Amino acid sequence: MSKQNFIKRPLRQPATLKDIARITGYSVNTVSRALRDKKDISAETKEKIKKISLDMGYINNAQASSLRLGHTNTIAVILGDISNPYFGIQMKEIENRAREQGYSSFLINTNENTEMEREAIQSALNKNVDGILICPSQHNEDTIRYLMETGMPFVQIGRYFENLEAGYVLQNDELGGYQAVKHLIDNGHQDILMLNGPLYVSASRGRLAGYKRALTEAGLPVKPELIREVPIIGDGCSAVISAVLREKLQFSAIFAFSDLIALDVWACLKNQGRHVPEDYSLIGFDNIQSRLAMPFRLSTVSANEIKMAAIAIDFLIGIMKGNRGDTFHHLIVDTELIPGETVRPLHKK
Amino acid sequence: MSKQNFIKRPLRQPATLKDIARITGYSVNTVSRALRDKKDISAETKEKIKKISLDMGYINNAQASSLRLGHTNTIAVILGDISNPYFGIQMKEIENRAREQGYSSFLINTNENTEMEREAIQSALNKNVDGILICPSQHNEDTIRYLMETGMPFVQIGRYFENLEAGYVLQNDELGGYQAVKHLIDNGHQDILMLNGPLYVSASRGRLAGYKRALTEAGLPVKPELIREVPIIGDGCSAVISAVLREKLQFSAIFAFSDLIALDVWACLKNQGRHVPEDYSLIGFDNIQSRLAMPFRLSTVSANEIKMAAIAIDFLIGIMKGNRGDTFHHLIVDTELIPGETVRPLHKK
Repeated sequence: MSKQNFIKRPLRQPATLKDIARITGYSVNTVSRALRDKKDISAETKEKIKKISLDMGYINNAQASSLRLGHTNTIAVILGDISNPYFGIQMKEIENRAREQGYSSFLINTNENTEMEREAIQSALNKNVDGILICPSQHNEDTIRYLMETGMPFVQIGRYFENLEAGYVLQNDELGGYQAVKHLIDNGHQDILMLNGPLYVSASRGRLAGYKRALTEAGLPVKPELIREVPIIGDGCSAVISAVLREKLQFSAIFAFSDLIALDVWACLKNQGRHVPEDYSLIGFDNIQSRLAMPFRLSTVSANEIKMAAIAIDFLIGIMKGNRGDTFHHLIVDTELIPGETVRPLHKK
Repeated sequence: MSKQNFIKRPLRQPATLKDIARITGYSVNTVSRALRDKKDISAETKEKIKKISLDMGYINNAQASSLRLGHTNTIAVILGDISNPYFGIQMKEIENRAREQGYSSFLINTNENTEMEREAIQSALNKNVDGILICPSQHNEDTIRYLMETGMPFVQIGRYFENLEAGYVLQNDELGGYQAVKHLIDNGHQDILMLNGPLYVSASRGRLAGYKRALTEAGLPVKPELIREVPIIGDGCSAVISAVLREKLQFSAIFAFSDLIALDVWACLKNQGRHVPEDYSLIGFDNIQSRLAMPFRLSTVSANEIKMAAIAIDFLIGIMKGNRGDTFHHLIVDTELIPGETVRPLHKK
């Protein structure tokens, strides 16, 4: 077995302008001017010099100074479930904003699993990233506590621990839950099934608080039997839907924790011969249709992911630049109701 | 401005068993046995030692030997568009398989953009990954040529360059195109609009070849005006749909390059007052509903992403282990027709 494939570009001893001059036969001055795109160098020469310098692993001054300072201009993004389009869309927005600010970013998936989350953090540390954006899986606090102890700049995005002194950027879950349920109430619904995420996730607690506020404000009772938990990942809805139909629970509308869950519920209801919105109105959360076209418009709440990504990246870069005063700040982005085709006035049923 | 946040765990001088023994007050033997989960050490002691060793950045023998050999047990995955659920699902399968084989993986997105692709490769090289899986954006060969010159082990996934001697794992695009179009023909359709990706993408050429084979085999003419290109990323379908409707092109079915495009087309048709499958049958490619529930089943072709991920990872690991003989191999995974609700027999219209 040859080890040849393991021989990589020796990045810690990058080629110098002198090396490139020697190989190309041009002067150091010409090489330098070509790499800086000066007008007095012909396009052909520039192209040749650039190609060779790239092949030789030449690192320009900005890159070299990053290496000297120990910065890599890289941000690791640690998210829960990359097969959920919401996280894909969120990653795209984060990456756009990071690029605008001169940082490249990469994604590590946790599958909402503590062990994988810990490995993801370790992996990011090993890769000497400058900072981490993380949506914690929240089974326990250990991973975030560990991250705090490393001194690595990081910001939580989308979820947070109330009792940890670590910065976060959240969608306003309470407001979003309120907007969704108020929209259903405004359409005449009173018995609203909430298919919530697990309560160890901060977003679930926030959305539930909004659900309760909307009902209470309208003078409607909060019925505990209408509040159900479904798994945040995977297709866990069919068991719950079968159960509520079997129990003959009275409800005319459903508020789902996420669009992913809402679509899954819709599919389950359809399999059971029930229709949306004719039999049940349905509203989700995340607005995945901002990027994913579908032949119907799911009523939903937007978490304003472009704004969240921008704020999270700017906040993280602030911490990376030593702005410790901001480390414990928390920022909350208001949600927005996105009316669709899956909520129907009850009296027209 | 304090620089404190930049002080990271000194990973290149990891804590030793001796360091941990000194800090915890236990013997080196006890520390070693605790970290190896030996039964003669109490659970409490183990937990204490493990926590401190983690906090101190202790690296076990396996990890340390990786560091000595220059291996990181990490694979970079470079994909085209993370907001397309297909890539999210593919990444999840790749990650699962890589984990099974002892590798962690992370994702870099290219937005189907050459410049970002080059940066993604550079970023992966800088992070000293052991190998790269890449779905090339294919605007030109330069990025893959560059990657070949670095000596970094890599495998192309989903797309390839015919004339480059670099390994790849592909879905059988020709077969998939054939299966999709034959399914439409079997349902009585003869005039089939193909909304293809750009022809610089190998998958587009393969699927088009399958489209032509199915028509020719059935004795049907290939009509050039029914073959249209749409952008592979973003919502570029509405212009094409408007154009073909305005031209009053005769067609009863549509074969879309991807499920993402099929859903977009469906949404566009609906906005124009046309219905699927009543007015037009529709079939996509990718089977994103393998992971993403929806209240209807889009007819599609599965690229068998679980099998592709397994083959690609195993192939890459082979190359990483010095198996140069395999470097130029190419592997093709057969596709499978997934009938849904969007193809309807024409005579029943």
